[in-house]
Amino acid sequence: VKVAFIGLGKMGAPMARNLIEAGHTLTLYNRTRARAESFAAQDAKVADTPATAVADAEAIITMLSGDRAVEETVIAPGQALEAAAPGTVHVSMSTISVALSRRLGTAHGQARQHFVAAPVFGRPDLAEAGKLFVMAAGPHAQIDRCRPLFAAMGQKTFVLGAEPPAANLAKLAGNFMISAVIESLAESMALVRKSGVDASTFLEALTGSLFTAPIYQGYGRMIAADTYEPAGFGLPLGFKDNRLLLAAAEEAGVPMPLASLVRDRLLGALAQGLGEADWAAFARLSLRDAGVVPSD
Amino acid sequence: VKVAFIGLGKMGAPMARNLIEAGHTLTLYNRTRARAESFAAQDAKVADTPATAVADAEAIITMLSGDRAVEETVIAPGQALEAAAPGTVHVSMSTISVALSRRLGTAHGQARQHFVAAPVFGRPDLAEAGKLFVMAAGPHAQIDRCRPLFAAMGQKTFVLGAEPPAANLAKLAGNFMISAVIESLAESMALVRKSGVDASTFLEALTGSLFTAPIYQGYGRMIAADTYEPAGFGLPLGFKDNRLLLAAAEEAGVPMPLASLVRDRLLGALAQGLGEADWAAFARLSLRDAGVVPSD
Amino acid sequence: VKVAFIGLGKMGAPMARNLIEAGHTLTLYNRTRARAESFAAQDAKVADTPATAVADAEAIITMLSGDRAVEETVIAPGQALEAAAPGTVHVSMSTISVALSRRLGTAHGQARQHFVAAPVFGRPDLAEAGKLFVMAAGPHAQIDRCRPLFAAMGQKTFVLGAEPPAANLAKLAGNFMISAVIESLAESMALVRKSGVDASTFLEALTGSLFTAPIYQGYGRMIAADTYEPAGFGLPLGFKDNRLLLAAAEEAGVPMPLASLVRDRLLGALAQGLGEADWAAFARLSLRDAGVVPSD
Amino acid sequence: VKVAFIGLGKMGAPMARNLIEAGHTLTLYNRTRARAESFAAQDAKVADTPATAVADAEAIITMLSGDRAVEETVIAPGQALEAAAPGTVHVSMSTISVALSRRLGTAHGQARQHFVAAPVFGRPDLAEAGKLFVMAAGPHAQIDRCRPLFAAMGQKTFVLGAEPPAANLAKLAGNFMISAVIESLAESMALVRKSGVDASTFLEALTGSLFTAPIYQGYGRMIAADTYEPAGFGLPLGFKDNRLLLAAAEEAGVPMPLASLVRDRLLGALAQGLGEADWAAFARLSLRDAGVVPSD
Repeated sequence: VKVAFIGLGKMGAPMARNLIEAGHTLTLYNRTRARAESFAAQDAKVADTPATAVADAEAIITMLSGDRAVEETVIAPGQALEAAAPGTVHVSMSTISVALSRRLGTAHGQARQHFVAAPVFGRPDLAEAGKLFVMAAGPHAQIDRCRPLFAAMGQKTFVLGAEPPAANLAKLAGNFMISAVIESLAESMALVRKSGVDASTFLEALTGSLFTAPIYQGYGRMIAADTYEPAGFGLPLGFKDNRLLLAAAEEAGVPMPLASLVRDRLLGALAQGLGEADWAAFARLSLRDAGVVPSD
Repeated sequence: VKVAFIGLGKMGAPMARNLIEAGHTLTLYNRTRARAESFAAQDAKVADTPATAVADAEAIITMLSGDRAVEETVIAPGQALEAAAPGTVHVSMSTISVALSRRLGTAHGQARQHFVAAPVFGRPDLAEAGKLFVMAAGPHAQIDRCRPLFAAMGQKTFVLGAEPPAANLAKLAGNFMISAVIESLAESMALVRKSGVDASTFLEALTGSLFTAPIYQGYGRMIAADTYEPAGFGLPLGFKDNRLLLAAAEEAGVPMPLASLVRDRLLGALAQGLGEADWAAFARLSLRDAGVVPSD
Repeated sequence: VKVAFIGLGKMGAPMARNLIEAGHTLTLYNRTRARAESFAAQDAKVADTPATAVADAEAIITMLSGDRAVEETVIAPGQALEAAAPGTVHVSMSTISVALSRRLGTAHGQARQHFVAAPVFGRPDLAEAGKLFVMAAGPHAQIDRCRPLFAAMGQKTFVLGAEPPAANLAKLAGNFMISAVIESLAESMALVRKSGVDASTFLEALTGSLFTAPIYQGYGRMIAADTYEPAGFGLPLGFKDNRLLLAAAEEAGVPMPLASLVRDRLLGALAQGLGEADWAAFARLSLRDAGVVPSD
Repeated sequence: VKVAFIGLGKMGAPMARNLIEAGHTLTLYNRTRARAESFAAQDAKVADTPATAVADAEAIITMLSGDRAVEETVIAPGQALEAAAPGTVHVSMSTISVALSRRLGTAHGQARQHFVAAPVFGRPDLAEAGKLFVMAAGPHAQIDRCRPLFAAMGQKTFVLGAEPPAANLAKLAGNFMISAVIESLAESMALVRKSGVDASTFLEALTGSLFTAPIYQGYGRMIAADTYEPAGFGLPLGFKDNRLLLAAAEEAGVPMPLASLVRDRLLGALAQGLGEADWAAFARLSLRDAGVVPSD
């Protein structure tokens, strides 16, 4: 498939590489052109603008930092949407708002193009390994058309429905559920540590019994060690995703008190100087509140 | 090992059976004698009182409904503690408070007996299968002495430390972490359902990707169907365990806002008539708050 | 003073009337012209557009429903800001966001005009009586210039500082504090009612002792009677103000868990069909959660 | 009236003095006898035990630190309840649990004595001035009998009902409502301070407009100055009252999320070393969370 790949960050770069290796023809665009050029040796073209990148693409994949970047690169006058041919499918794989997803669906429809939302679960290591989990939603025919692409980047694709925002919502809800795991580990570890129980021993008991999902191990180790750097997924990004979730919940009319609690934790963590750390660093607030670790 | 087994409820009965089958010699006591007598065919003695049950036991296992039952059966004048011989080990396997665990440790010590706390994770089906997870804490020599017993009842034993309350705390914290899973699923499902996404499809995407631990499947199905009966673990028991957790947190001086949120959910669920349901029924409150399901 | 008064709703109309009665010369603009024309007998001019309204005004007062209305009437091309003369002062008296207040300050400055933020506390009855409380912020000279206007509409003016957003923040924080009063009354009344204590007797004891501020009486009576209509200040407006507060808190980096709790209450009240009621209607959720009143 | 007055702490001492000055005949008991003896000059008898204190009293007033002290002094074998004559009325004026109030009602009834719960609002300065607010509940005839006593100690008496626990509940709910005032002030002040608005100016605007009750002034000044010493009402006492409230709410089946939030604040304040301060010191946590003040 001829793919215009836009956005070569920590996640986008390995995803693009896996597509090239799977035999797809890629034209790359990245705001900082140097990142795109490092792919040149691998026989991928580099475009100067989103518009030239998509000129003769069958599929456009965006893997950008957020709503604004997608708006600027795709929707703004003279950008990808205007330049793409009818029939092109835009696959939005980064975490964007439900509202923007809806707007993209409409806009591409008016241009006789197609839109599929396909955000992913997985950190850069899973992206490298082509083992991401793809949450897809959109017209079934278009999703089928994208399956070879998903297969090159991910280990499994889940179809959430025919309306693209369903996938964005599932992704945001999934991130929220991770934040609940972090908060529950944080409060538990504050309790056991202050009570004189070794945090690692406790974590082993949890992950060896009921809490076998790898996220419990991954985040549990960070929290047991109270060390959140280097950041796999930065705190400001986690805050952004929480904000998108709460916006979707507000629009839908759904109170989510646990999501609100996490919001205040993330906001507090930023206010207390943890903005450079992994988003799991809001766990430290539980330890601080309990006086288990000193405040800085 | 000669075991006095006290408490033959939904969990205790299959645990006792597995001990008998593993070749241990059991004397049984249950407040309602009939439940104990159903074991007679299996060559176990039945005692009339806790005191006679423990008379020549090497180990006493209690699997009772809560603190009060343990106090009445073990600590009260004329009960198990007074009747047991020096050197006997009491293994408390039900979920009791950290404070009572500490008190039992002291009381048995004064009687030159031993005390091991060994609460378990797992519902009756795991108890039947001898696949419980045992969270044990106490003097290492005593834990080693109990290993054949644990092996007959569980699939894995985790040692939390030399102080018995460590195991009770780990168990309470584990239950709290399950409650966080329930709340996060509840809020997420309220959101996706109200937004028109199928709850089961969403659940499949979660459990097939990052949330692979079986608890997500088990509770997720209940919540997706909004059906919480029959109760595997009743709501009042869940509320009791939450109360014990918050008491331990208060004693230790650890604020746990997520545990407080769950407390209010459980209290609300009881107030709204869900006391007969599984404890996961507090998930319905998220659906009600969002107007997704009507209130009764 | 020659005043262009824009926005003649429940609050704006009596405020304008009081200005006219105090001898100021008013030109009125309201989107629905009929509302403005009802003032004609009182010797006030009616303008067709914001631009014509402000043409020779010394002061522009806006009392509009929210940010969008202010943007459309003041900032948009061809509207009040462009039409007003240098030296004119714009006094924004409705509840708008901190961000818009900042933007207005800059925009008026660039047009060599002045900007004062002066939102008010008080419901329509206080507006009628000219007894509003004015929270003002802006350059001191400009505030002094506006004092005769404030004196006609309010009983007291508080100066929060030289930066206009300070007043908007104070107003939003004040509304938040009212919401805290409502929530505390709601939880307390759910408790005493369910415990068999008469809610009105309890309220009398509160308001006769420590809680003497009239808001406790006003809201307390609504909640004791569980009756929130007719709406003095509608729930959607209350939700909007809470959202503006949380946005300001997010921008400033301040976690406000009680404001988050109120957010979820307001969102739940909207989801449960209380959108037509006074914003205090979120108190009903405490009664519902406790099973004191049935859900509809 | 012949009164046995038990408990001469910061509150009890001035209350007893006011009774003496009003012409009542007092016999005093205090665990530390010296405190009682300082009254001797004022022509009051001092008793060695609660039992001798009540021997020929018509009314017994207890103003003790908590449930345990009341149990030990009144209910325990050989104490006040056994020693008092039939017909005596016990007036419990300190803040005790709803459960103990119920138990006292029953116990005094069995001894053909009477019980009135009459906790008070007001700090030591109001106690000195005889200006406390009395929340009374119990049989009407008994309350009438106590009115001369209440008149000597307080400025107003509110009758909550015929069941004594109603008064205890009202008192606990009132304290909870104060804690809501503190939390709302704390979050607001964190917001305005971090946004560059002067906290005292903001407070003046609040207390000069809608929030006229003196508690807003009193607590507002503490929080604006972030200074909570000397403690008028200590943090551990505030925590105890919050615990009693949550226990009453649990018994009644009423979720109180704002009370839970305050619980976690109080617990956090204790954990972070604020145990010597006034209970309003939990306000500092809002300032710390926002990074407005450093942690110690």
